[in-house]
Amino acid sequence: MKPMGPIPPHFSGEDGMLLIGGCGAASLVDEAGDTPLFVYDMGIVEAQVRALRQAMPDALAIHYAMKANPHPPLLARMAGLVDGFDVASGGELALALEAGMDPAHISFAGPGKRDDELTATIHAGATLNLESEGEARRALVIGRRLGIAPKLAIRVNPDFDLKGSGMRMGGGAKPFGVDADRAAALARMVMEAGAEWRGWHIFAGSQALDPHAIIEMQAATIALAARLSEEVGAAPPLVNLGGGFGLAYFPGDRRLDIRPIGTALASALESRADILRGSSFAIELGRWLVGEAGVYLTRVIDVKQSMGETFVVVDGGLHHQLAASGNFGTVVRRNYPIAVANRFGIEPAQEAVTVVGCLCTPIDRLGDKVALPPVAEGDLIAIFLAGAYGASASPNAFLGHPLPRQLLIG
Amino acid sequence: MKPMGPIPPHFSGEDGMLLIGGCGAASLVDEAGDTPLFVYDMGIVEAQVRALRQAMPDALAIHYAMKANPHPPLLARMAGLVDGFDVASGGELALALEAGMDPAHISFAGPGKRDDELTATIHAGATLNLESEGEARRALVIGRRLGIAPKLAIRVNPDFDLKGSGMRMGGGAKPFGVDADRAAALARMVMEAGAEWRGWHIFAGSQALDPHAIIEMQAATIALAARLSEEVGAAPPLVNLGGGFGLAYFPGDRRLDIRPIGTALASALESRADILRGSSFAIELGRWLVGEAGVYLTRVIDVKQSMGETFVVVDGGLHHQLAASGNFGTVVRRNYPIAVANRFGIEPAQEAVTVVGCLCTPIDRLGDKVALPPVAEGDLIAIFLAGAYGASASPNAFLGHPLPRQLLIG
Repeated sequence: MKPMGPIPPHFSGEDGMLLIGGCGAASLVDEAGDTPLFVYDMGIVEAQVRALRQAMPDALAIHYAMKANPHPPLLARMAGLVDGFDVASGGELALALEAGMDPAHISFAGPGKRDDELTATIHAGATLNLESEGEARRALVIGRRLGIAPKLAIRVNPDFDLKGSGMRMGGGAKPFGVDADRAAALARMVMEAGAEWRGWHIFAGSQALDPHAIIEMQAATIALAARLSEEVGAAPPLVNLGGGFGLAYFPGDRRLDIRPIGTALASALESRADILRGSSFAIELGRWLVGEAGVYLTRVIDVKQSMGETFVVVDGGLHHQLAASGNFGTVVRRNYPIAVANRFGIEPAQEAVTVVGCLCTPIDRLGDKVALPPVAEGDLIAIFLAGAYGASASPNAFLGHPLPRQLLIG
Repeated sequence: MKPMGPIPPHFSGEDGMLLIGGCGAASLVDEAGDTPLFVYDMGIVEAQVRALRQAMPDALAIHYAMKANPHPPLLARMAGLVDGFDVASGGELALALEAGMDPAHISFAGPGKRDDELTATIHAGATLNLESEGEARRALVIGRRLGIAPKLAIRVNPDFDLKGSGMRMGGGAKPFGVDADRAAALARMVMEAGAEWRGWHIFAGSQALDPHAIIEMQAATIALAARLSEEVGAAPPLVNLGGGFGLAYFPGDRRLDIRPIGTALASALESRADILRGSSFAIELGRWLVGEAGVYLTRVIDVKQSMGETFVVVDGGLHHQLAASGNFGTVVRRNYPIAVANRFGIEPAQEAVTVVGCLCTPIDRLGDKVALPPVAEGDLIAIFLAGAYGASASPNAFLGHPLPRQLLIG
């Protein structure tokens, strides 16, 4: 038997049926028409945003990094909940605008922006987080051609990283942003070229579960922003502090306590350098806002024995939930939290089973020797933490299976 | 500097331009309209099929495992080149039929076949490679409902594996097929139930580069098929020997020499047990047939320095070529062969650069500290071995970028 990550605290059962947003999992499948199905509970997203606003300093803007989940109905709701969207492509920019987000509160970060993407962003009046001097040059040329002063922030490759981060985005040679020692010169250059300088974007890492690591990173980020602004000799309109708030996906992980982060950030902002007194501050979060709100529901097609082991074969798989299979940026495969949705919380786990997807490849493994109650054909398997980097971050076309359904509730 | 895999021998340059099927890479991009672009050279596929037929015993049927590349124009050509298609879903079955493959030469393997997929297969007259007793039961019920005797082969989980295989599909508890010690009973059961028993499907692993490992596996497969057939007391119409032929993706890999495999297989078939005298034999290959024929072409958007390292940022990335990023079933990231398509074979490699995709994530790395000639904005980067498990096996929707273009030539 191998352990699994903790089931997020939002979920309970009623008469053995997993409830999502107060609805039984089986009824949600009926409503959506079939499995495999991603259910996103907007109630959980709203609770996360509320908890975040309560914990963080009042003046801090909350941005949603929509790469985590760009499902249009979810975006439309998000547009009314948060203060801005961060996009990572021209396609995401279009979705953000369709969702009703004010372009003044949209910023675009990404290391390989094509000219058509720069054009669309400048045209819309959104902010480009510049990743290099070359990109700055291209944006300025396009701005002149359009007759629009582009809104340009400088993305900085910080000279520190987020400790314990699942994905380091700073601290060493990186494809993201410009090195801190060239950032001020670039800010001066874009201002001299007539662009509207929007400030700094400093993203040091993501998926951290240690509040102290995030506290330290935010303090270092504010100090770096101050130092760079002094170098520029101008106050940045906005300092985007990045994100980094992680989710407890795996065995032994503990949910991030955001309250000490908010307390420390309030105090760091109070004591900030004079040059940042008039600046606005934002954090951008993706997975932390939406990840726990999603459940991937997939139906058991077969339960089979092989050499003394039990395999539960489901109608979903890594083509919908690649991350849960351990094949997306993970070195060692570990189990996401998983349950039998229609035997939830009533029957004790009796045996270790391996839950595999329907793909004809040995890497399509959603749960490795996990303890579940007895499972039969037709049962519903729930994989938690499916609200971020699930449906949109998986190879949907692989092996020609249908796309997953997606249902927003709450 | 880190090494890269070997560029397949089919490619050369002319005046510094990479030729694919005799056409310059830049002209192919013009023809397709834009990058990122997968080019598939049917001439290379045909040469692989020719080499295979020459090396293998005459009577051996060649099946294409279309999961490797289901691009419809390629399938249409494949239907005329090979003797059968192996499909892994109802969606692939539909594509195989549209490509003109005779359903009598289509078989469907996959551990989680839904009832609608069983129905479509039986209705079409294709063969189901049964993965379990439960699936057999469902197929028989559906056959009776349709009034059609289903064509059923038994997929066997062999009691051996393919040594040195990148993906082991046998040898131990597995979600694929039925354990060898239950296979004969299942074959008898389906015959007694009135189905048409089609024989054995025995797939022990894939992506092996050692001919001796494949020779040993094929001998063991034929011996197992004989033993199981004796147990059944009937000759199998077809024995599908699986695949396993690997490609040289990585540094130090050597291209598989298939000639000794063919010689050994001819001799193994000549000396086969009497019960297999009247049986047909097939191998099913996916990546080996089409992998080398594909090149992924992506344009350089930016060349940037960070802390003394050079990053080449391209307009493609892991959303199109996940495997090359090392995030698909790979434990240690290694470099696929990669080149500057418009500086091919003329300028010596001068510096180690890191080629990253346009996605805003540190895992989007297509070449890690690879030696390339000087690279500038607008250059074309070629990533080889992109004909299998590329476009169809990558998270295309991730970050909202456009789909890759695909162009079949030759």
